Amino acid sequence: MDAIPSIKHDRDSARTTVRDSKLKTDLITRLKRIEGQVRGVTRMVEEDVYCDNILHQISALRAALDGVGKQVLENHLRGCLVDRIQAGENEVVDELLVTIKTLLK
Amino acid sequence: MDAIPSIKHDRDSARTTVRDSKLKTDLITRLKRIEGQVRGVTRMVEEDVYCDNILHQISALRAALDGVGKQVLENHLRGCLVDRIQAGENEVVDELLVTIKTLLK
Amino acid sequence: MDAIPSIKHDRDSARTTVRDSKLKTDLITRLKRIEGQVRGVTRMVEEDVYCDNILHQISALRAALDGVGKQVLENHLRGCLVDRIQAGENEVVDELLVTIKTLLK
Amino acid sequence: MDAIPSIKHDRDSARTTVRDSKLKTDLITRLKRIEGQVRGVTRMVEEDVYCDNILHQISALRAALDGVGKQVLENHLRGCLVDRIQAGENEVVDELLVTIKTLLK
Repeated sequence: MDAIPSIKHDRDSARTTVRDSKLKTDLITRLKRIEGQVRGVTRMVEEDVYCDNILHQISALRAALDGVGKQVLENHLRGCLVDRIQAGENEVVDELLVTIKTLLK
Repeated sequence: MDAIPSIKHDRDSARTTVRDSKLKTDLITRLKRIEGQVRGVTRMVEEDVYCDNILHQISALRAALDGVGKQVLENHLRGCLVDRIQAGENEVVDELLVTIKTLLK
Repeated sequence: MDAIPSIKHDRDSARTTVRDSKLKTDLITRLKRIEGQVRGVTRMVEEDVYCDNILHQISALRAALDGVGKQVLENHLRGCLVDRIQAGENEVVDELLVTIKTLLK
Repeated sequence: MDAIPSIKHDRDSARTTVRDSKLKTDLITRLKRIEGQVRGVTRMVEEDVYCDNILHQISALRAALDGVGKQVLENHLRGCLVDRIQAGENEVVDELLVTIKTLLK
């Protein structure tokens, strides 16, 4: 992945990540597709589709969501993490550990 | 859970599950909330929110989705599985094994 | 899988599962290999092996363990579950739901 | 965690991690306990214990193994990762991404 986000603090001091525009477009496209998949599952429930078919659709949805998560994580590690460690802000590691533990659950 | 779905084949011979109306309403409510959460993540990406915050939101979304999955699975086991085994349709177990392996991935 | 375990209660009324001898041998072989892998990881820690290599070994170990879990689960569903549902002991489904939730965690 | 491992290349150029002795002892203790748990599961299979009980034991074993994995990962991030990024060896991030994807599977 080429996207190396730079980090800045906005005036409200909320941390932001400026992402490469290609990555940003890609993530938004995937998320809109996921939104459509969720609506598809809702419709399956409304139409009394057999449970097993719904379960497979939910697994596919979770895999799509994990794909987005991995892409965001990759961008985070390659960009924010490296920048912040080089800037001596090692607390980024504590934050990352919490995040990974959440993802591993 | 009280919902014991009965199983019928519709005229296209696609298998369906008639769910208890309370369960159906509950699932649809959860799925609509999940759809909103997906839109929230899309907006976070559009607004350059810090990666780590997005990752936590994705974990929360996955947990919500797993909740729906568990509810559908529970309904499937208590209803369809028991009915079909009692009707001698033991192939429901093969199908369930495939599904569980997908969910465990 | 051909193994269809039959179920009996022993004199202490603990539930047991009589497994097909091929399955039993196969499970024991895999578990002994897993035991050896655990000893391998211990040795890696003792010899100060690089963390990343240890993490890959732990992933391999977890995959091997999940393999055993899936085999036991398959045997459980095909054998015990079907037998007990046919005998009207539907509480096997409650028990299974607890187990699957633990495995899905 | 206080352990900050330092990294050296040994004469065979295999990367090693010198761990804090408390961490090392702790990891070895946990791994020996896990080894005992694996032997316990083997015994359960040999003695025809009911599948469901074995499945719970396997879940407990996997949780214990994940505990070791998280501890090694934490040590890796706090120590090796920070040291190597500060030394400009950013390829440690590629390696970490592969590892995390394996752990997330």
